[in-house]
Amino acid sequence: MQASMDGAPPPTSPTGLSVYVAVSQLLGLTLLATTALLVYRVFRHEAKRSTKALHALLHGLALVIALVGIIAVFESHQTKGIPDMYSLHSWCGMATFVLYLLQWFLGCSFFLFPGASFLLRGWYKPQHIFFGITLFILSITSCLLGITEMLLFKLSDSYSHFVPEGILANTLGVLLVAFGLVVGYVLTREEWKRPPLAEELALSMDFKTLTEGESPGGGSQ
Amino acid sequence: MQASMDGAPPPTSPTGLSVYVAVSQLLGLTLLATTALLVYRVFRHEAKRSTKALHALLHGLALVIALVGIIAVFESHQTKGIPDMYSLHSWCGMATFVLYLLQWFLGCSFFLFPGASFLLRGWYKPQHIFFGITLFILSITSCLLGITEMLLFKLSDSYSHFVPEGILANTLGVLLVAFGLVVGYVLTREEWKRPPLAEELALSMDFKTLTEGESPGGGSQ
Repeated sequence: MQASMDGAPPPTSPTGLSVYVAVSQLLGLTLLATTALLVYRVFRHEAKRSTKALHALLHGLALVIALVGIIAVFESHQTKGIPDMYSLHSWCGMATFVLYLLQWFLGCSFFLFPGASFLLRGWYKPQHIFFGITLFILSITSCLLGITEMLLFKLSDSYSHFVPEGILANTLGVLLVAFGLVVGYVLTREEWKRPPLAEELALSMDFKTLTEGESPGGGSQ
Repeated sequence: MQASMDGAPPPTSPTGLSVYVAVSQLLGLTLLATTALLVYRVFRHEAKRSTKALHALLHGLALVIALVGIIAVFESHQTKGIPDMYSLHSWCGMATFVLYLLQWFLGCSFFLFPGASFLLRGWYKPQHIFFGITLFILSITSCLLGITEMLLFKLSDSYSHFVPEGILANTLGVLLVAFGLVVGYVLTREEWKRPPLAEELALSMDFKTLTEGESPGGGSQ
């Protein structure tokens, strides 16, 4: 838009750059989010509060990276005069970002800041874990849709002739699926979950006794 | 190919039909597989053997439907002179089908036919469940990649102008994601799992005692 208005030749390098920035940032969200998901498995014997803060911080960074990627895509579209948000990739990608942001806010509100009761945290924790893994899967799916979209736009007919770029991008997609599979396996093994430290167990028992004492009917879970 | 060789006008109707058959069968695999995944939640109080047989039968039907879909795709490609297996959708779809077939054979060998020991079944069960849910997610992902591919092939430039077909297909994609989310939620809730019947519990305890009696070191799990 800007280039056509002032009559100068279109700035092709920054445009191409922004597409690559967008792809790298979308992938960046997935990889950084993975690190955030795995902190409870890796830092098994650290204090829970520090691990939680690191989990929130890494997810926060992943969100910033995703935002940079989304802005790059919108800018690239504006420069090339391409409409926004028409494809399934954009719908899935934007849904992932918005739900990820919501999940992050809810996670901080329930677990990082005081206020939520022990019972409320206990109810929300399995939902947070389920939606966390779901959003991780959705972010990989959005990447795969983005890869397919980009291949069909950029390679067009040559994609069906097994050109190296096509095979490379397909392999990247398969590796992303394999990566998701390994991370999903690590996250869902019951025996690899972070065991509570001795002091956390004692504290949790105290809380439970207190809560059950206040409301005998509601403390069965 | 065939049409151009005998000089007759190309049989457009069967060609178009095979594409729609392929799409419907791919979707069919996902929907039938879902029914198979949910039988343990729905038939909670039936004998385990009947539920297992139904689970295997429904997955077997899903495999047959997927095979019909794959044959339709290959036939459609042959008629139009399109190369096979070049896209990320085809790689993911074929990987899903082959792994699904392997999972089905392993499931039948371990759980349906006698031979596998109680310990071996106990070790394989969580792997079977994990890979079952993974293949369910992978089948939805393959559908989404197929929808994106088809939209970019069929609608091409008009896709970015928000034509009704594009919005309809995107909505189908989002509904598939929502469907996967609900099924995933139902399958992973600990409290909704099928409780063992009284006689199964007694039998399982007998087996455990027997196995632990035979090999005291290996019976801790």
